[in-house]
Amino acid sequence: MQTTEKTQPKLLKLKKRLSEINDLEAAASLLYWDQATYMPPGGAAARGRQLATLQKIAHSKFTDPAMGELLEGLRPYEETLPYFSDEASLIRCTRKNYHRAVQVPAEFMGEFSEHRTQTYSVWVKARATNDFAAVRPYLEKTLDLSREMADFFPGYEHIADPLIDFADYGMKVSILRRLFSQLREELVPIVEAITAQSPTDDNCLHQRYPEEQQLDLTLKVIKQMGYDFERGRQDQTHHPFMINFSTGDVRITTRVDQDDLSQALFSSIHEMGHGLYEQGIRRDLEGTPLACGTSSGVHESQSRLWENIVGRSRGFWKFFYPQVQSYFPSQLGNVSLDAFYQAINKVQRSVIRMDADEVTYNLHVMIRFDLELMMLEGRLQVRDLPEAWNERYREDLGVVPQNDSDGVLQDVHWYTGQIGGMFQCYTLGNLMSAQFFEAAVTEQPEIIPKIEQGNFSTLHNWLKDNIYQHGCKYTAAELIKSVTGTALRIDPFIRYIRQKYGQLYML
Amino acid sequence: MQTTEKTQPKLLKLKKRLSEINDLEAAASLLYWDQATYMPPGGAAARGRQLATLQKIAHSKFTDPAMGELLEGLRPYEETLPYFSDEASLIRCTRKNYHRAVQVPAEFMGEFSEHRTQTYSVWVKARATNDFAAVRPYLEKTLDLSREMADFFPGYEHIADPLIDFADYGMKVSILRRLFSQLREELVPIVEAITAQSPTDDNCLHQRYPEEQQLDLTLKVIKQMGYDFERGRQDQTHHPFMINFSTGDVRITTRVDQDDLSQALFSSIHEMGHGLYEQGIRRDLEGTPLACGTSSGVHESQSRLWENIVGRSRGFWKFFYPQVQSYFPSQLGNVSLDAFYQAINKVQRSVIRMDADEVTYNLHVMIRFDLELMMLEGRLQVRDLPEAWNERYREDLGVVPQNDSDGVLQDVHWYTGQIGGMFQCYTLGNLMSAQFFEAAVTEQPEIIPKIEQGNFSTLHNWLKDNIYQHGCKYTAAELIKSVTGTALRIDPFIRYIRQKYGQLYML
Repeated sequence: MQTTEKTQPKLLKLKKRLSEINDLEAAASLLYWDQATYMPPGGAAARGRQLATLQKIAHSKFTDPAMGELLEGLRPYEETLPYFSDEASLIRCTRKNYHRAVQVPAEFMGEFSEHRTQTYSVWVKARATNDFAAVRPYLEKTLDLSREMADFFPGYEHIADPLIDFADYGMKVSILRRLFSQLREELVPIVEAITAQSPTDDNCLHQRYPEEQQLDLTLKVIKQMGYDFERGRQDQTHHPFMINFSTGDVRITTRVDQDDLSQALFSSIHEMGHGLYEQGIRRDLEGTPLACGTSSGVHESQSRLWENIVGRSRGFWKFFYPQVQSYFPSQLGNVSLDAFYQAINKVQRSVIRMDADEVTYNLHVMIRFDLELMMLEGRLQVRDLPEAWNERYREDLGVVPQNDSDGVLQDVHWYTGQIGGMFQCYTLGNLMSAQFFEAAVTEQPEIIPKIEQGNFSTLHNWLKDNIYQHGCKYTAAELIKSVTGTALRIDPFIRYIRQKYGQLYML
Repeated sequence: MQTTEKTQPKLLKLKKRLSEINDLEAAASLLYWDQATYMPPGGAAARGRQLATLQKIAHSKFTDPAMGELLEGLRPYEETLPYFSDEASLIRCTRKNYHRAVQVPAEFMGEFSEHRTQTYSVWVKARATNDFAAVRPYLEKTLDLSREMADFFPGYEHIADPLIDFADYGMKVSILRRLFSQLREELVPIVEAITAQSPTDDNCLHQRYPEEQQLDLTLKVIKQMGYDFERGRQDQTHHPFMINFSTGDVRITTRVDQDDLSQALFSSIHEMGHGLYEQGIRRDLEGTPLACGTSSGVHESQSRLWENIVGRSRGFWKFFYPQVQSYFPSQLGNVSLDAFYQAINKVQRSVIRMDADEVTYNLHVMIRFDLELMMLEGRLQVRDLPEAWNERYREDLGVVPQNDSDGVLQDVHWYTGQIGGMFQCYTLGNLMSAQFFEAAVTEQPEIIPKIEQGNFSTLHNWLKDNIYQHGCKYTAAELIKSVTGTALRIDPFIRYIRQKYGQLYML
C-alpha cells in the first residue's frame, strides 16, 4: 500500500496497531486450524483457554480508546483523500469495525462466547443422539443473547438487521425478503418440473473410491484450477473450511467419503474458491483489515462459482473426466461423460442442505432464514422449532426429515453462532456467483472454451482483477455495482439455472 | 495445584497473569511448530512477524512493573510457606524468571533477536557453501552482544556464568571446568583403547530403508516405551525437536534418512525422552512457570537416558530386534542381534558431534565449551575460530574436518543463539542420565530385566515419581541431590561407559 507515513504519523501509528492485532488474530486462526487438523485430544482443554486469551487480547487492543482517538484524529486527513484510495479505505473500514466492536461490551462478548462453546459441545452430542430437548435450553439462551446483541445496535428496521450486517454489511431483512420471494417464485416451478421426471441415476458416484486416490485427485484438480500450493495446502478435517494466516498462507481442508466420490472433490473445489479469493488479495494490503473478503455473501459467491458454475459444468468435465476415469478405471471405465455429468447434477427433494443440488439449495436456505426471523420476532418459540422446521420441509420441499438429527439439528450455525444472520450468505453467494460469472463471460467470452481445455487462468485473472485484489476495500454492494453494472439481482442466477437444467432435464 | 486463593487474592492475580503469558507463549510455540512442519513457503515472512509480535507482548506482560509489585507483595506470605510447597515454589520460580527478564532492556532483546534471525539465515547459506567468511561479521557481532548480555548481570565470577545460568541455573564455569577435566582424563584412555582396535562394521545400518516403514517402526517403538499419543504426536522436520503447548499436547519430530536406519530411530527415541519429561509433569501445574523441565541439562538427561542408556542397550534390542528384522527382512534377516548391537554402538573418532557415539560425544562438547570461553575472555578472535576449531579436533579427536561446513559451521547454536552457555547442557545431560539411571536401578533392580521384556513402565514410573512430575519446582542441583543422594558427579557415567564398552570392545 502506498503511504504518506512521513506526513501522517497517525496513519503509521494506526497501521502499527492494526498489524499487531492482525498478528494476534492470525495466531488464533492457526490455533484453530491445528485444533481441527493435527492436535491430539489431550490438547483440547488448554487450546480453548489459549484461543480465548488471544481473542481477548486482540479485542482489547482493538477497542482501546487510543484507537478511537487515532481514527477521529485521522478524519480531517481522510477527507482530503479520494474515497476509494487505499488510505481512505483503510481508515473507513477500520472505523466501521471499530464502531461495531466498541458497541458490544466486552463482558457480554465473553458471556456469549462461553455460551457458544458450551452449546456447541451439547449440540455435538444432541445431534448424535437425536435429542433436541438436550440442546433446547441452550438454544433458548442463544435466542435471548442474539436479541440482546442486536439491541446493542439501536435504530434498526428489523431486529435481525444488525446480525445480518455482521456477515453481509449493508444487507437488511427488507431487501432479502424481496429477493428471496422473487427467487422462490422462479425456483418452485423448476423444481416441480424436474422432480416430476424419473430420478437421475447417480449410482456411479456411490462406489468404493479409496481415500488416497481421491485425495491425490483433488490436489491435481485444484492445482490445475489455479490454487497456489506455494501459498497454501490442503489437509483433512471433519468439516471442510478455508482459513488464512496471511496472504502468503491460505489453507483449505477437505473431507473424504470412500463411498461417495463427490464429497472430497466438490468440497475441495468449494474451499479452493474461498482460497483463491484470499490468495488473490493484493499482497501490500497484508496486515491491515483490508486484506480479507468483503462479505460472507461475496466469499460464498467465489466458492460456489468455482464449485458449481465451473466445477459442475459439462465443459469442465469434458476436460477432467478422462483423468478421473484413469484414476478409477474399474469404477468409471464404463460410465459415459454424460452419465457422470448427470449424476453430479442430480436434482432431488432432500432434507440435508449441505448435500442439496443447485436448484433446491436456496429453498433450504430460505427455510432457515424465515425461521430465524420468526424466532427473533417472537412469533416462534424454540420449543416449537422442530415442528415448524419439519412443517416447512413438507410444504417447501415435499419431504420430512426422519428425525431431528437430519432436521433442525443438521446445521452447526445456530449452535455455534447466533440466531439471525447465519444463512442469508449462502443464497446471496449463489445469486452473486451467477451475476459475476455472467459479467466475466460477457467481457471475455473465451472463458467458456478455455475451461473445456483445462485453462482456468482467463477466468481466474478476471476475478483477481475485478474482485479478489481489492480485499474489502469495496463493500459487497459497491463491488457488485462496479463489476456488473447493476445492483444484486436474481435474473443471472435464474438464467443460469434455466439454461443448464433446461438442457439436463429437457424442460 | 492446591491454592489458598480466597485468602491470597494476590496469588490469584499472579496466576491469572502467568496463565495469560503462558497462553501467549504456547501460541508462539505452535507458530514455530507449524513453521517447521506444515507451513507453505509463502507463509514465512508473515510468520516471522507474528512470532515476534507474540513474543513481544508476552515479554512486555511479564516485565510489567505490576508483576514485580505482586511478587514483592507476596513476599510476607511466601515466608510463611514451606520452601518446597507448590505456592512458595511458584512464587520463587516466577521471581527468578522475572528478575532475569527485567534485567535485560527490551530494546536490547529486540536488537539481539533480530540479529539472531539474520545470522541464522546467513549461516544456512554459509554452511551450504562452506563459506565461514560470509557469516564471520555476524558472529563477531554475536560475540559482542553476548558479552553485553552477560554484563546485564554484574557480579559474575566468569563472563560466561550468566549465559550458562539461563540454560542451567546455578551452573558456573568453575564447576564445569572441574567436572569436564575429570571426565576428559577418564575418557581419553578409553577412546584410545577402543580406536586402537579395528573398526566395528556398521554397514548393516547403511542400506536402503524405506521412509514409510521407518516412520511406522519409530511410532511402534516409542508407543511401547510409554509416549502418550493421546497427548502428543510425531511429525517430520529437518532438525528434530520436542515442543509443547500444554501438558496435554507435547509433540516431537523426527528425521528419516532412507540410507541410515539409525537416524529416525534414535532421534525419535531421543525426542521422546524430552517428551516423556514434559508429559509427566503434574497436570495441575499447567499454565504456570512450574510446568516445564527444570534445566537444559536435566532435559537432556532424559533424552539421553532413553536414547542411549535404554535405547542402545543390549536388553532393549533383545526385545525389539526381532520386530525390526520383521520390518526389514531383506536388510537385516541375516544380521545377528550382536552384530546389530555393535553397529549401533560403534565408537570412532569423527568430526560431527550429532553423529558421535556415547564415548567420544563429550569430547566434542568440551571443544565447543572451551572455544566459547576463550572467545568471551578475548583470548580467541572470531577470525581465528576455524583454525582453533580444527586444531582442537586434531589434538582431541585425532581427525580434522575436511571443510568448515563439517567444522566450525556444523552446529546451529552460535548462529541462532549466543556465544556462551550453549553446549554444556549436553555433557551435563550425559552425566546426569547415568547418575539418575543408577539411582533408579539401585532402588528397583527389576528395571533391567523388565526392559528385556519390553516393559518400560517400572523405569518410566520411577522417573515420573522422582523427576518428571515436579516440573521446575526443584532446581537441577536440588533434584539431583534429592533423587540420587549426592551432587552431580562423573563416576556413574564413567562406570556405565566402562561396563558397556568394556564388554563391547573386550577391554
